[in-house]
Amino acid sequence: MAKTFSDYAKQVSEKLEHVFPTIAGPFENLYKAMNYSLLAGGKRIRPVLMQLAYEAVGGKAEIDAYLCGIEMIHTYSLIHDDLPAMDDDDYRRGKLTNHKVFGEATAILAGDALLNDAFCLMLEDALKSDSMEKVRAIHVLSMASGSAGMIGGQILDMESENKAIDQDTLDLIHLNKTGALISAATKMGAILGGGSPREVSLLEAYGKYIGKVFQIVDDILDQTSTIEELGKPINSDEKNHKNTYLNFYTIEKCYEIAEELTTKAIGLLDQIDGDTQLLKDLAQQLIMRRN
Amino acid sequence: MAKTFSDYAKQVSEKLEHVFPTIAGPFENLYKAMNYSLLAGGKRIRPVLMQLAYEAVGGKAEIDAYLCGIEMIHTYSLIHDDLPAMDDDDYRRGKLTNHKVFGEATAILAGDALLNDAFCLMLEDALKSDSMEKVRAIHVLSMASGSAGMIGGQILDMESENKAIDQDTLDLIHLNKTGALISAATKMGAILGGGSPREVSLLEAYGKYIGKVFQIVDDILDQTSTIEELGKPINSDEKNHKNTYLNFYTIEKCYEIAEELTTKAIGLLDQIDGDTQLLKDLAQQLIMRRN
Repeated sequence: MAKTFSDYAKQVSEKLEHVFPTIAGPFENLYKAMNYSLLAGGKRIRPVLMQLAYEAVGGKAEIDAYLCGIEMIHTYSLIHDDLPAMDDDDYRRGKLTNHKVFGEATAILAGDALLNDAFCLMLEDALKSDSMEKVRAIHVLSMASGSAGMIGGQILDMESENKAIDQDTLDLIHLNKTGALISAATKMGAILGGGSPREVSLLEAYGKYIGKVFQIVDDILDQTSTIEELGKPINSDEKNHKNTYLNFYTIEKCYEIAEELTTKAIGLLDQIDGDTQLLKDLAQQLIMRRN
Repeated sequence: MAKTFSDYAKQVSEKLEHVFPTIAGPFENLYKAMNYSLLAGGKRIRPVLMQLAYEAVGGKAEIDAYLCGIEMIHTYSLIHDDLPAMDDDDYRRGKLTNHKVFGEATAILAGDALLNDAFCLMLEDALKSDSMEKVRAIHVLSMASGSAGMIGGQILDMESENKAIDQDTLDLIHLNKTGALISAATKMGAILGGGSPREVSLLEAYGKYIGKVFQIVDDILDQTSTIEELGKPINSDEKNHKNTYLNFYTIEKCYEIAEELTTKAIGLLDQIDGDTQLLKDLAQQLIMRRN
């Protein structure tokens, strides 16, 4: 039977368990805090997208360091986002947030360490295989997660709270805050799998479209879901005076826009020779998701 | 006239000014916060050590990305260290700390961005010159600044506050918290300059010795200096209930230990053929420093 999305996600979670084996030692608490958030579940969307893009262009080896690396960077950003000075959230994925369990100082350092160690892990792999293509993939990630990518989006999001912004600004926030890492995932997969320049840019563009769908649905669920279903507080956007797509459109119109973007994303995949069925399915599922 | 340490430091500061040109744009405040701390002065010890180690083994090109990269990582660690949840310091290098000027949330993100963008800057350079030796140097830095290096040292330091610890634990804290990045600086310089394996390990060991001297003198100055001279609050170790070398030794004995380590460090340099005069001078100056 063909592998499903959740088979892939489960494999990623298993790999993540082996990144920081819990060893008694002087830094034990740091690793506990890092593992607490890293192994707290989650959909593993970014690494699974990377793996699927990798296979779509014919990649056949393993890219564990990069699958784990992007999830470590995603996890660090969540830990820091949840801090009292930032969104001040108590729950994430149905569990207490990192700083609620380990305290603020340790949470800050655990986030720092996940970011740093992600690069360390990937660099070690690139050195071992003496591959500049792998270095290129790491560079793509560092661009996406840095000041001109995810962090820029976070700053802009924060500065836009309590303010009326136009839709272009909202798009810019989401393109950076969520979209950058998602399109980096598919782009990295294509690079690591030895895809042609055209395949790399098709898969990157696919990532941009579904990244936006992901964010639109996030905005909707924050208003329509329940805490049990979502695993984190609902109505947090309203509480934090965040700008969302619902400031501009009705829920029905939001779904319509998301449908259009999904059709475009799937259209790009049709131009790739390899097997892109799961990437297509994933795009469809993103709209339907309930958490 | 031969270049002095402060000539080198000045050159580093000038290079740092060009990493993030202040451009009006959506992320302007983020870059302002990053530049505020990055350009706040400081002794630039790590990049200067890297440059001197590079020249000692015969390096002749430029390694700007790595000089800036290590100082960006050092700066991020200071911004996060100063946060209210960590050491809660109001002054650094004679200026208000980052979060006192920009707020906690922006300070956290500015630190994150400096760490992330440091890797981005160095990776870009390594890709441009298609050099695996450069990738190796970046990997050395990621090891030194991560969970098994600087961040591990910070956690241990924090956990040891208000506790009686033995001297081995104190050494472990300093070896990681301060020493890791300093010895990474000299090791990276040697790698980037094409040094032999023996030169790389001699310069790394030199870095370890002077890293310890640096920390011992830091502990002394925290107790004996003035805020004007030091540019940051004195007696902060006592205030934060930190363990220091002064818990174990008198000031006189501390200086004696520092002298011994300095002599060892200089002895290692004698085994290197290239010009190591400034590295020797620097080791001597570290003991005498007043801030």
